[in-house]
Amino acid sequence: MRQLDTLFSPRSIAVVGATEGRLKWGSIIITNIVDGGYRGKVFPVAKNRDTVYGIPAYKSLLDIPEKIDLVIITTPASTVMEILEECVRKGVGDIVLISSGFSETGDEGKAMEDEVIRYARAKSLNIVGPNTMGITNTKISLYATGSHVRAGRGGISIIAQSGNVGNQIMIWAEQENIGVGKFVGSGNEGILRCEDYLEYFSEDPDTSVILMYLEGVDNGREFLEIARRTTLKKPVIALKAGRTALGSRAAASHTGAMAGSFEIFRASMRQSGIIIAQTPTELLALSSAFDSMPLPKGNRVGVLTLGGGWGVITADECEERGLVLPPLPEDVYSAMDKMLPSFWSKGNPVDLVGQPDINIFRKSIEVMAASDAFDAIVFLGVIGSFKMGLRCTTAAQRMIDPSLKDSPEIRGIVEDMQRQFLDNIIGLIEKYDKPIYPVALVHFKEDDIIHIKEGSRYKVIVYKTPEEAVLCLERQYRYAQYLKNQERRT
Amino acid sequence: MRQLDTLFSPRSIAVVGATEGRLKWGSIIITNIVDGGYRGKVFPVAKNRDTVYGIPAYKSLLDIPEKIDLVIITTPASTVMEILEECVRKGVGDIVLISSGFSETGDEGKAMEDEVIRYARAKSLNIVGPNTMGITNTKISLYATGSHVRAGRGGISIIAQSGNVGNQIMIWAEQENIGVGKFVGSGNEGILRCEDYLEYFSEDPDTSVILMYLEGVDNGREFLEIARRTTLKKPVIALKAGRTALGSRAAASHTGAMAGSFEIFRASMRQSGIIIAQTPTELLALSSAFDSMPLPKGNRVGVLTLGGGWGVITADECEERGLVLPPLPEDVYSAMDKMLPSFWSKGNPVDLVGQPDINIFRKSIEVMAASDAFDAIVFLGVIGSFKMGLRCTTAAQRMIDPSLKDSPEIRGIVEDMQRQFLDNIIGLIEKYDKPIYPVALVHFKEDDIIHIKEGSRYKVIVYKTPEEAVLCLERQYRYAQYLKNQERRT
Repeated sequence: MRQLDTLFSPRSIAVVGATEGRLKWGSIIITNIVDGGYRGKVFPVAKNRDTVYGIPAYKSLLDIPEKIDLVIITTPASTVMEILEECVRKGVGDIVLISSGFSETGDEGKAMEDEVIRYARAKSLNIVGPNTMGITNTKISLYATGSHVRAGRGGISIIAQSGNVGNQIMIWAEQENIGVGKFVGSGNEGILRCEDYLEYFSEDPDTSVILMYLEGVDNGREFLEIARRTTLKKPVIALKAGRTALGSRAAASHTGAMAGSFEIFRASMRQSGIIIAQTPTELLALSSAFDSMPLPKGNRVGVLTLGGGWGVITADECEERGLVLPPLPEDVYSAMDKMLPSFWSKGNPVDLVGQPDINIFRKSIEVMAASDAFDAIVFLGVIGSFKMGLRCTTAAQRMIDPSLKDSPEIRGIVEDMQRQFLDNIIGLIEKYDKPIYPVALVHFKEDDIIHIKEGSRYKVIVYKTPEEAVLCLERQYRYAQYLKNQERRT
Repeated sequence: MRQLDTLFSPRSIAVVGATEGRLKWGSIIITNIVDGGYRGKVFPVAKNRDTVYGIPAYKSLLDIPEKIDLVIITTPASTVMEILEECVRKGVGDIVLISSGFSETGDEGKAMEDEVIRYARAKSLNIVGPNTMGITNTKISLYATGSHVRAGRGGISIIAQSGNVGNQIMIWAEQENIGVGKFVGSGNEGILRCEDYLEYFSEDPDTSVILMYLEGVDNGREFLEIARRTTLKKPVIALKAGRTALGSRAAASHTGAMAGSFEIFRASMRQSGIIIAQTPTELLALSSAFDSMPLPKGNRVGVLTLGGGWGVITADECEERGLVLPPLPEDVYSAMDKMLPSFWSKGNPVDLVGQPDINIFRKSIEVMAASDAFDAIVFLGVIGSFKMGLRCTTAAQRMIDPSLKDSPEIRGIVEDMQRQFLDNIIGLIEKYDKPIYPVALVHFKEDDIIHIKEGSRYKVIVYKTPEEAVLCLERQYRYAQYLKNQERRT
């Protein structure tokens, strides 16, 4: 296994090609590192400058008087060999090679890349790229990518064979407050390949879930073997692009990798326990589900809804994904019958027929979660209803006193109610060791989709749609089944 | 055809069952109407109160000294017949029957509903419901639903057989700033059925696109016949729930309607020119696409991307949906070759290989849009890149002066750049009468997804993902084909 601790957790970094030319990689990278809050030492290397953004610059790596853990290179392809030689002389073994102009640009670039590869192999260098978007390690606030994205800290680590797709995933994570561990754009994979990162993340204690965007894998057999071992330890969620003829042609022209037969490769990925996503958004949704909740022990789902229509949509989604909605057992039935109006649905999905009482929500969810008849609970329409209710109350008050303004105090109380309700859901997940998927009546833009309770092992995700919740539930169920089957075999 | 102008555009409304009990429908509805800004007259009818929220109340409809266009009833099922008789005596023909406790609750309720239906037929009453979420007409700021949702004005009119699903669609529209025309929750469809609303909306000049959430249709033949006529005039987007055995069982217990054979019905819907959505989110995404852009004349797509990976994903999505990416014609090729670095992709998708120059974006998109080789353009990664670029610049400035704060002025300039860029896209859509689908590099929470340019016929939607853009493009293409085939037949 490649030892990548120094690469991802360097105590000092030199940026070769650092510049104040705002649109250049040499500026974007160094500003991202410093402005992102990296606490280690940063050394700009610039041929024609004494300082870069006020930081003393060096003409060459060899001029830097201190030890360097990581070198990030942003200068043109033709300059790279010389810099690598300096790295070796300086005793640096970890390099992020941002520079483009290698194999992705044609024969001449390919020849330069081959030279880099030969040299790196001979000197046992860890090189990310060339043509990479860079790396991130949120734990040490190291944001060394070509885009100033600042995803927060968390357990999802990302390997992306396309910098742009990886970057977009990181931006979504930032916007939705989904925590990320490490990120690497694997670029042309001259030296370090996606399977190396996969293997490293499989042992990384700060990584709980691995997310991959793949276009093509050079050594399929080795990749799948590493994947098989990794998925026994932690979930791996992957999107394999190039699933159509058009897509794989586009992939070939993009990374130069042979896309191969998609169907066969995808089947092999599944057999290795990899969880397959269809789209980049699915990648992130699945990763955060796996990062947040326990796996369901079976496929029996209890559904609660504030309104019938949603129950129908959810039942459709469940059936299509091989999940079942068993009838309510006697004890659940009678407990519900005591709480709800006589015309409740009397079946699964349980339609709470618009009851606005928060205690009934809470109790009904617990009754379902406590029952051995269900492996997972989906409940629809409660989250967001507090704030919607507040709108009604405020409107009523405004009718009496038209000068009335929104009260931040009352808003705070309502937000607390929702927080407590979600805290309680986390409590139920822990108590019954069973996943619970809330789907919001309305997800307000200002609200986070992930709810965290201090000191809890699990988190809860507020889904925007039933289809997304059921997708995540299904994949968690399949992965649980996979692990069970593997255990049986050994 | 049912004449529903008075129902949706009343000049005066009586709310029977008006109350100040905050969680009651009689309070939620009247506060929603008044607080929502309805300009007509509102008369509370309340047995035991002289005023409701300060508005003079009447003991009975018959006590109101003025003409009433619309009566909204929120009192229990058992009181409804008497109120309907008062409506008739008062000369009111349009009623929104919020009250539940009818056929959805069992035999007794069914008997009451039958009585209402018989009476309404005899007296030719237009009744929405019973058991309806209510109605909305944004044009006159009439928000008469059980949830204080305030979607803005627009051309999408909504028919929902589930109040909750309809409500959620409206909330999404509100949150995303997607304009809505009229909304109706059809409830139990005792008198007015979804086909009546469909027929009315087909003639409604304020409705440009019709969105339907369906669980079951009583008179399939009539519904399809009306749909066939309507889709020749304007797009109808529908989600038919209950597509699995589980789902249709849930639907039956919810609305009591027979779900019937889903596959057959869906095929018939398609043959009637209805555009089918799979999920509620698709419903809204498709509706706003149809409401915003011209239809593509064929299935030939030109793709531009700021980074290769996205091009691959987009090519995959296109091929799976029956769209093609033709090679670049000679003139487009040479125009691009002049603008772009030598290692550009030289094919479709056109990879702009990370060029940060806004003028190159603009010119490349126009070169593609102008070409007869393409019926539609998808471009990826430009929107949002201005603000991301600003982050880099700000970080650079902060390195020189750490006390530097975000400058609202510079932010304003950057936002203007993006606005002008999107205005230009609308210009291209109009100039070449061809849809253009931008997919954002990053969609910031505070940004709207729909961009409007004063005085323009078209709008532009900023997609969050390639898959959503391609889905909309595909459905717009299929609908265009449908219309072409229908024309040929006549």
